[in-house]
Amino acid sequence: MAQTPKNIAIVGSGLVGSLLAIYLKKSGHLVTVFDRRPDIRTITFSGRSINLAMSNRGWKALQKVGIEDEIKKIAIPLYQRAMHVIGKPLYFQKYGKEGEAIWSTSRGVLNRRMIDLAEAAGVEFRFNEKVWDVDLPDAKIYTGNSEKGAWKEYGFDMVFGCDGAFSRVRHKMQRRSRFNYSQKFIDVGYKELTLLPNEDGSHKMDNHSFHIWPRGKFMLIAMPNLDGSFTCTLFLPFEGKDSFESITTKERAETFFSTFFPNVLPDLGNVIEDFFKNPTSAMVTTKCFPWIYWDKVALVGDSAHAIVPFFGQGMNAGFEDIHVMSELMEKHGDAWETIFTEYQELRKPNADAIAELSYRNFIEMSSKTADPKFLLQKKIEKRFAEKYPQKWIPVYSRVTFSDRPYAEALAIGDAQEKIMQEVMGMPRIEEKWDSREVEDKILGLL
Amino acid sequence: MAQTPKNIAIVGSGLVGSLLAIYLKKSGHLVTVFDRRPDIRTITFSGRSINLAMSNRGWKALQKVGIEDEIKKIAIPLYQRAMHVIGKPLYFQKYGKEGEAIWSTSRGVLNRRMIDLAEAAGVEFRFNEKVWDVDLPDAKIYTGNSEKGAWKEYGFDMVFGCDGAFSRVRHKMQRRSRFNYSQKFIDVGYKELTLLPNEDGSHKMDNHSFHIWPRGKFMLIAMPNLDGSFTCTLFLPFEGKDSFESITTKERAETFFSTFFPNVLPDLGNVIEDFFKNPTSAMVTTKCFPWIYWDKVALVGDSAHAIVPFFGQGMNAGFEDIHVMSELMEKHGDAWETIFTEYQELRKPNADAIAELSYRNFIEMSSKTADPKFLLQKKIEKRFAEKYPQKWIPVYSRVTFSDRPYAEALAIGDAQEKIMQEVMGMPRIEEKWDSREVEDKILGLL
Repeated sequence: MAQTPKNIAIVGSGLVGSLLAIYLKKSGHLVTVFDRRPDIRTITFSGRSINLAMSNRGWKALQKVGIEDEIKKIAIPLYQRAMHVIGKPLYFQKYGKEGEAIWSTSRGVLNRRMIDLAEAAGVEFRFNEKVWDVDLPDAKIYTGNSEKGAWKEYGFDMVFGCDGAFSRVRHKMQRRSRFNYSQKFIDVGYKELTLLPNEDGSHKMDNHSFHIWPRGKFMLIAMPNLDGSFTCTLFLPFEGKDSFESITTKERAETFFSTFFPNVLPDLGNVIEDFFKNPTSAMVTTKCFPWIYWDKVALVGDSAHAIVPFFGQGMNAGFEDIHVMSELMEKHGDAWETIFTEYQELRKPNADAIAELSYRNFIEMSSKTADPKFLLQKKIEKRFAEKYPQKWIPVYSRVTFSDRPYAEALAIGDAQEKIMQEVMGMPRIEEKWDSREVEDKILGLL
Repeated sequence: MAQTPKNIAIVGSGLVGSLLAIYLKKSGHLVTVFDRRPDIRTITFSGRSINLAMSNRGWKALQKVGIEDEIKKIAIPLYQRAMHVIGKPLYFQKYGKEGEAIWSTSRGVLNRRMIDLAEAAGVEFRFNEKVWDVDLPDAKIYTGNSEKGAWKEYGFDMVFGCDGAFSRVRHKMQRRSRFNYSQKFIDVGYKELTLLPNEDGSHKMDNHSFHIWPRGKFMLIAMPNLDGSFTCTLFLPFEGKDSFESITTKERAETFFSTFFPNVLPDLGNVIEDFFKNPTSAMVTTKCFPWIYWDKVALVGDSAHAIVPFFGQGMNAGFEDIHVMSELMEKHGDAWETIFTEYQELRKPNADAIAELSYRNFIEMSSKTADPKFLLQKKIEKRFAEKYPQKWIPVYSRVTFSDRPYAEALAIGDAQEKIMQEVMGMPRIEEKWDSREVEDKILGLL
């Protein structure tokens, strides 16, 4: 159904804000994007980013507005994990079937390109314009240099809050009665480190792999960039023995990196410099409901559902929000209250599911990867999935390479886990894990 | 240990704020209480209150600063529940052992008296002074007529946030990284209604009972006041068949009250008037952590842990916070960082426990009271507890008539529930519920 053009404000020019702007503009609306920060195309990056892994849901949303190919130019496909385990040779784990990949992109590079594309489509951007207040029933926004200073008032037909985990728009909704909200931080922080290219500009390690150095309570990952560098991310507890709190001097940092990541980071000087220069960031899961206010205001992406990054789905989930919203726009035309209501009803259970899956991946990585029982279970699952690819699709594939609902992936994952608990309870499972008996047991339970 | 006098601000002049003021003043500190509202002693009540039930933990905190007797003068002991079930004669359930009671007090009347007592102790109150911002590390507060207008700055040694479920002080802490927070509303609201006294000023029903009219999805309660009236509270879903949303006209309200509460409210005209005049209030559980900022700021009472009112413990839990803080002050003297740290470590698990117990009571009242299995279970428990009062102390008594930690009451309650699940699984339990066999089963499981 066709839509009457509306005058729409989007708060936030990040990835979700700029993609939503393209969608709305291409649907015939007048779109203005506000951002409290300067134009990201004019500044150097902050050194607080984790590289993004674009997967199926993200690509699907880009494809629908015809910018998939543009973005593929700035992304590198990763077909496998490269596992750097102390005392073991480097080994690889394929992500999916032949050709299935996640795509490494720099958040900053991607964001710049998305804003370019939105501007080219006719979206107006107002950078350095801080939104301090939103009049929800009237879709008005108030901007100004400071919260206490003079404000400028803008009237719109609709306001979309794409302003991230600490959304100002949501913050306004949160002060209303019967608005449910939670923010829960994990006790691990992260820091961006850079692995520079070789002198000839080439990558120092395989550039079609997602590199992981699991170390129990902490972990280093690296994803390639187009310029030959890798963006590395150190995930480390805030407090405790090996922690951001405990590594306070250059000497301690050197000891830490050379003990746990020997030969990983050849240019240790550069890493140590990054370590003390770049900020330490926290990770949060936020949940809220409702996501909308009448037919006037809607939250999209992190503002509605920020998640921890351990499933690589934050951006993908936000892009999928937009895809779902766009399908509802096509279905319901000018009935925006219906569009918004169905949007939140469709997306809320899936946002909760990917939040849960992401949090579980964090727990799994920080406490289970050293557990032989857990590793054996994974081995049995892998063997079975390879032999019966139609009967056992791993949760990772359901999340990453499909567009079925996250909530379905979670439910099926739980059912698989229940089966595996029975399998792991079989007597002498350690000896017969690759036997016909175990296989039949799983087939019987499915 | 003695304490050096400090200059202390308390934000909020409610029950917790005024009791804390008395404690701190009597410990030798300079105390200023700020409240955004006018002096409650100068205004008529809002018609949005539920009467309070002071129980053991509340009295204990009042006793320590010598104001228990003063407050007992404005409270009425309730020794029993009076159950008004349709189609059954009125029946009574004793709360505890001989002499054990909860004490009905009007929130407004109590608050006025507490402020009087705090003023008499030398506390300064600054009413109509709205706190808009708090400088956490410097314990400064900023007040003014409006958020956008000119602000006045006050410097203190410490700031206590006693400003309730939607605390401005907590709100400031919430914007910091690694602050965990949740607010969760239930789908039931409440409304205050008044049952006027007889013409001679006496109570229309037994005034030493807590009156309950359970009706499945909704419920009416009544607690006596000193002036012969009862403060009644109607708990009703916001939406649905019988709900605040559906009762929109005088006719519908009359039908509702005469259908579900016949002869309960003799002066139906007055009730209907209240129904449309008084506001409908929402109920929320809030949780957060940390509760403190260095040795500068601490949250006490609802600002740290608002709970739903179905266990009658909101005020009691807040008063217990103060009692615990006071013991720590005696123990640690000027070591405020230690006092604050131990305070939040001691209280957080207990606040979570009473939040959970209160929420469970809501679920129990709204969905289980019509379940014959549940009622049978309660009958078995009651019979056993009466026969073996040392072996089976009900959770209600542990919460209401003891000062053991709430977390302990929750844990023991869970253990008791597990035992009862086994008992309820016994074959033909409906026939032999009062048999020696059942008794022995429980004894064996304890």
